[in-house]
Amino acid sequence: MAKMKAAVYVGPDRIVLDEKPVPDVGPSDALLRITTTTICGTDIHILKGEYPVEPGLTVGHEPVGVIEKLGAAVEGYREGQRVIAGAITPIPHSYAALSGYGSQSGAVGHGWKPMGGWRFGNTIDGCQAEYVLVPDAAANLAPVPDGLSDEQVLMCPDIMSTGFAGAEQAGIRIGDTVAVFAQGPIGLCATAGAKLRGASTVIAVETVPERIEAARRMGADAIVDFRKTDPVDEIMRLTDGRGVDAAIEALGTQQTFEACLRVLRPGGVLSSLGVYSADLKLPLGAFAAGLGDHRIVTSLCPGGKERMRRLLNVVASGDVDTAPLVTHRYRLDDIESAYELFANQRDGVLKVAITP
Amino acid sequence: MAKMKAAVYVGPDRIVLDEKPVPDVGPSDALLRITTTTICGTDIHILKGEYPVEPGLTVGHEPVGVIEKLGAAVEGYREGQRVIAGAITPIPHSYAALSGYGSQSGAVGHGWKPMGGWRFGNTIDGCQAEYVLVPDAAANLAPVPDGLSDEQVLMCPDIMSTGFAGAEQAGIRIGDTVAVFAQGPIGLCATAGAKLRGASTVIAVETVPERIEAARRMGADAIVDFRKTDPVDEIMRLTDGRGVDAAIEALGTQQTFEACLRVLRPGGVLSSLGVYSADLKLPLGAFAAGLGDHRIVTSLCPGGKERMRRLLNVVASGDVDTAPLVTHRYRLDDIESAYELFANQRDGVLKVAITP
Amino acid sequence: MAKMKAAVYVGPDRIVLDEKPVPDVGPSDALLRITTTTICGTDIHILKGEYPVEPGLTVGHEPVGVIEKLGAAVEGYREGQRVIAGAITPIPHSYAALSGYGSQSGAVGHGWKPMGGWRFGNTIDGCQAEYVLVPDAAANLAPVPDGLSDEQVLMCPDIMSTGFAGAEQAGIRIGDTVAVFAQGPIGLCATAGAKLRGASTVIAVETVPERIEAARRMGADAIVDFRKTDPVDEIMRLTDGRGVDAAIEALGTQQTFEACLRVLRPGGVLSSLGVYSADLKLPLGAFAAGLGDHRIVTSLCPGGKERMRRLLNVVASGDVDTAPLVTHRYRLDDIESAYELFANQRDGVLKVAITP
Amino acid sequence: MAKMKAAVYVGPDRIVLDEKPVPDVGPSDALLRITTTTICGTDIHILKGEYPVEPGLTVGHEPVGVIEKLGAAVEGYREGQRVIAGAITPIPHSYAALSGYGSQSGAVGHGWKPMGGWRFGNTIDGCQAEYVLVPDAAANLAPVPDGLSDEQVLMCPDIMSTGFAGAEQAGIRIGDTVAVFAQGPIGLCATAGAKLRGASTVIAVETVPERIEAARRMGADAIVDFRKTDPVDEIMRLTDGRGVDAAIEALGTQQTFEACLRVLRPGGVLSSLGVYSADLKLPLGAFAAGLGDHRIVTSLCPGGKERMRRLLNVVASGDVDTAPLVTHRYRLDDIESAYELFANQRDGVLKVAITP
Repeated sequence: MAKMKAAVYVGPDRIVLDEKPVPDVGPSDALLRITTTTICGTDIHILKGEYPVEPGLTVGHEPVGVIEKLGAAVEGYREGQRVIAGAITPIPHSYAALSGYGSQSGAVGHGWKPMGGWRFGNTIDGCQAEYVLVPDAAANLAPVPDGLSDEQVLMCPDIMSTGFAGAEQAGIRIGDTVAVFAQGPIGLCATAGAKLRGASTVIAVETVPERIEAARRMGADAIVDFRKTDPVDEIMRLTDGRGVDAAIEALGTQQTFEACLRVLRPGGVLSSLGVYSADLKLPLGAFAAGLGDHRIVTSLCPGGKERMRRLLNVVASGDVDTAPLVTHRYRLDDIESAYELFANQRDGVLKVAITP
Repeated sequence: MAKMKAAVYVGPDRIVLDEKPVPDVGPSDALLRITTTTICGTDIHILKGEYPVEPGLTVGHEPVGVIEKLGAAVEGYREGQRVIAGAITPIPHSYAALSGYGSQSGAVGHGWKPMGGWRFGNTIDGCQAEYVLVPDAAANLAPVPDGLSDEQVLMCPDIMSTGFAGAEQAGIRIGDTVAVFAQGPIGLCATAGAKLRGASTVIAVETVPERIEAARRMGADAIVDFRKTDPVDEIMRLTDGRGVDAAIEALGTQQTFEACLRVLRPGGVLSSLGVYSADLKLPLGAFAAGLGDHRIVTSLCPGGKERMRRLLNVVASGDVDTAPLVTHRYRLDDIESAYELFANQRDGVLKVAITP
Repeated sequence: MAKMKAAVYVGPDRIVLDEKPVPDVGPSDALLRITTTTICGTDIHILKGEYPVEPGLTVGHEPVGVIEKLGAAVEGYREGQRVIAGAITPIPHSYAALSGYGSQSGAVGHGWKPMGGWRFGNTIDGCQAEYVLVPDAAANLAPVPDGLSDEQVLMCPDIMSTGFAGAEQAGIRIGDTVAVFAQGPIGLCATAGAKLRGASTVIAVETVPERIEAARRMGADAIVDFRKTDPVDEIMRLTDGRGVDAAIEALGTQQTFEACLRVLRPGGVLSSLGVYSADLKLPLGAFAAGLGDHRIVTSLCPGGKERMRRLLNVVASGDVDTAPLVTHRYRLDDIESAYELFANQRDGVLKVAITP
Repeated sequence: MAKMKAAVYVGPDRIVLDEKPVPDVGPSDALLRITTTTICGTDIHILKGEYPVEPGLTVGHEPVGVIEKLGAAVEGYREGQRVIAGAITPIPHSYAALSGYGSQSGAVGHGWKPMGGWRFGNTIDGCQAEYVLVPDAAANLAPVPDGLSDEQVLMCPDIMSTGFAGAEQAGIRIGDTVAVFAQGPIGLCATAGAKLRGASTVIAVETVPERIEAARRMGADAIVDFRKTDPVDEIMRLTDGRGVDAAIEALGTQQTFEACLRVLRPGGVLSSLGVYSADLKLPLGAFAAGLGDHRIVTSLCPGGKERMRRLLNVVASGDVDTAPLVTHRYRLDDIESAYELFANQRDGVLKVAITP
């Protein structure tokens, strides 16, 4: 039986490179040979044991690769083809996916499962490895257009899909004003996404100089440095007391969640992307006692090949360039060092590229 | 100067019948002679001093009446015509109203004000009086179709508009399952509204026998008595563990808000109508750490003559009959007794009709 | 090899009962033993050669049955279970289905095909037979709730799904006025659907007495008999010159399509369900020279198990009862007589039930 | 009584500069002193007598100016303030405007009138004059941000609002492919609008070199020159046979309307902006016999101060620059020459600026 290298969760603070069998390919699966992958903030939650997965599981959910082997029932692809798959791999026949919520799809029972579409590196082996098995391949493999490099498309599976979703769910109209709290990789894509939906004024809240610079490149029209000024006060000042039409939360804390609500005009949308780690509070006043016609929407990264197809179009068109988010590069053999860097957010890291 | 009787807020626990001048009519106003009005839960918040208004203000925001006098600039109506006006009277030229959020309209500055469309009995004199002045009359007067009694249309200005909004904002699809927490007058209209939008299974949560009975008349398919069973457990049982597609909160407490979230399937909508009196908590698990594709929407009663026109259509068609919600009747002279009854929810009261 | 009886298209005006092999079951298929099916207007188009299918194909696309055999990869069902499948069986992993347009799904190429989701009795063998093979069974089999008869659920696969879609796509608001042109089975379900979405006044246009009576049972508030009065004039009179908010076309002719446009208010929706057989004309005036903010939407019957699940909920709730649409019953052995009756619309027929 | 110069419609082929009284200002009006205006394609329809207006009417509907005098009831502005008003001036209290369709608002009767929001130069005196009276000023005056020139904002009242509406109504998703037929001023803004909504591939159909060049500046990703190739074939080739997600018609002919339908994928949107002058035909095949899940939407230029506010934001942000569309400049005194140039589309004209 062929063997491969894989980054495996062993226990809190322990993700190690190990050797595992190359997986068998079932009729509806595809085996990808990974050419590039990356580490996500969620992987750090796993590493720290804040979101434990099964010990022995291969982690990672952002695959760029080449089809090594196709299951017998998978049509419309060829072996050797370059593809990506989304971080989320919906079960296309689940009730959830058929309702348009593939990220919440469950295989059994009533067909819904919170976050059930997130399988790679969560409930099945992930892609920080030499090979990954893609389930429901016919719904999840997205061919990469010729001429695009691995690093150009590396953000599509998760970062771009999530960040854009934050903007898409925010109900943005052409000419609107939008605040985006935090300019990590997902916040940066939310900034780009808000511009793609027609926002005229995107206010990016951040303090790290490299991220502020990246935010400007992604289209931010104004920057609020939360260490230099109170972001709520400053945004209300920038909007002449009106507030923003939409506020996007891209960090996952009470402070940013609450600030979003405080800068929203009545009838505005709080679009939440962060992964929270504690109960949230909705302050009575900012929530207008429930009478402000506010909407709060949360989004889990949309997946599936149609979603990926459109994101690849964005890259191919040149409208958004996420390649510069890759600030560091590692061999799979050195992934433990990559984790060490990324977990500690050292050296101005935004994203790392991992190549087997 | 002509005088009239009016129910006036004096201070906490003191709403009294007083005498005030009949108001002058400006060019864009209309003066209504009230024929029937009612008391709202919000009036009780005012009475108790929880939501204080300016002492001396006439309270009440649910007018049925006859046009006594039209402002010089108000066209398309005639004196003597029977009309209603919504509890909310949008400022039609405000940026908020032009954005579709008339309930949040501000006259000055940037044109938005939280709850700014609620003027009667809040920022201007209300309609628990012999006469009320309707601002922006051309946008707010809605003629009552012949053949409908005052009591048949008495719920349109607030209760029906609010309750239906809870259902309209919930994204209900034909065949969906919806839970409605609390079956006071607004919850009852949310139940009726959920059926009007095509929900197949509306689960009403209530314990008061008269309200349970009213819920059935409004179309509830199942009743959960929260004193006999845990409503979250029971709704999950009724839905085979799937949860509901939408949950409507119609009380205004942490307990019901949270229960709504706990019974929602991923991707579902929590449609909140309650007026809260404290910060709210979003429990991490029920909120799926922000990854459940949940939406939380709040609605303030929509107003304006077009909204009222459609609600009057509902009444005229016979599709929903809210007249039975009127359980008690008082003369304006006895309004202090009506407040006493309603504030204490005595005698199975749902709504009182007040006639000058 | 086991044999079964099946109604087969031979050529124009010739659908005959024949004997064919019971199909083999592939990994993602299910074999249903048909217990009840029916004949659709589309089958008559096939019969007449207006919409020819491959000679030898089994026709019919409205199956109620029992699972005889499940493919190896189909989980979540059991043999012996009562189910329906939609007339449309989306390919769940196609780009079209993943975009929410399963009715237009293509297996190959770019993943879109006009009407490609309509497979039964169009591109694969249909269900006017003792057995039918359901492709992509995991996405298409919908369990029938206990206690519902075959005839109660017989309209779900096509008639109800199509008719309701006409109402769902019409953008109906609570309190709206809607006209439905033609009250055949689909128009009747559009009438019921418009009420389910909250229309207060549904104006049904029809002339056949049995259909007028059925329209009233389905909730029509007003009837316009197009033989007694000009329907456009009459609808404009009924709406005081305002026109309707939405008009649903359920016949498939220039005359009704155009009448829909003529009775629409500006900003209204023409929701088209008919199958047309000639080019259509948009009259300049009725179309306001393209400046009336009109929308014209067409719908092909939505399918898939989630759609069916919700329609079955509607039936189970008792909100809409389509069983009375079954006016005639035949054995499969006599299906040629059933076609003769239905094609000629004799004897007040609405729908026939066919039982093997 | 003060006099002013105004371009007046006299009869077919005769728009002449005349002298008229400066209008009186009613309580809800504002008088603008025009600083810049322009000529629209619709004005040419008027000139040619294809769309006759009342002889003696001042034409023009794209005002940039300064508030000369405010009506007594108009608050929130000051005399001397720079403003624009939309080509469409909704009646804010009409049922149409309160339904979100201000462009179709009627003052009397049921409150709807096809194109009723288009008043300037259609039903009331327009703005190709030294002064124009703005009705319902509180809903229609939009302050111009400091630092923007007249020519920078000259397209907001009509061209940009209309062109963007074509994109907004097209249901564009991030990553979509959109075709825009004709790159006159409105088509150019539709191209820009499609990019603002996130389309990755905008295919502009045009043949005039200056317009092709302008289309590229507005963001077109591909150009199809309909004189060099069949645009339907070419677009199908560019999309690998898939078709486009949305097609925007910006000319007003059967040929372009039909081509839009022929390049649409099933489930796509034909967004129509053109002003047609004859009945339109929907070809049976391209319309998929009514079964393609197609949508056809038409838009009349949205107006009102909130719409203008957001368009001014777009200009102020620098996201779209329409100033280069002004290719020629005339004094009001020479407006007859400007009409001559524009009507004959001589000298590569896109738009003319007229200054009193």
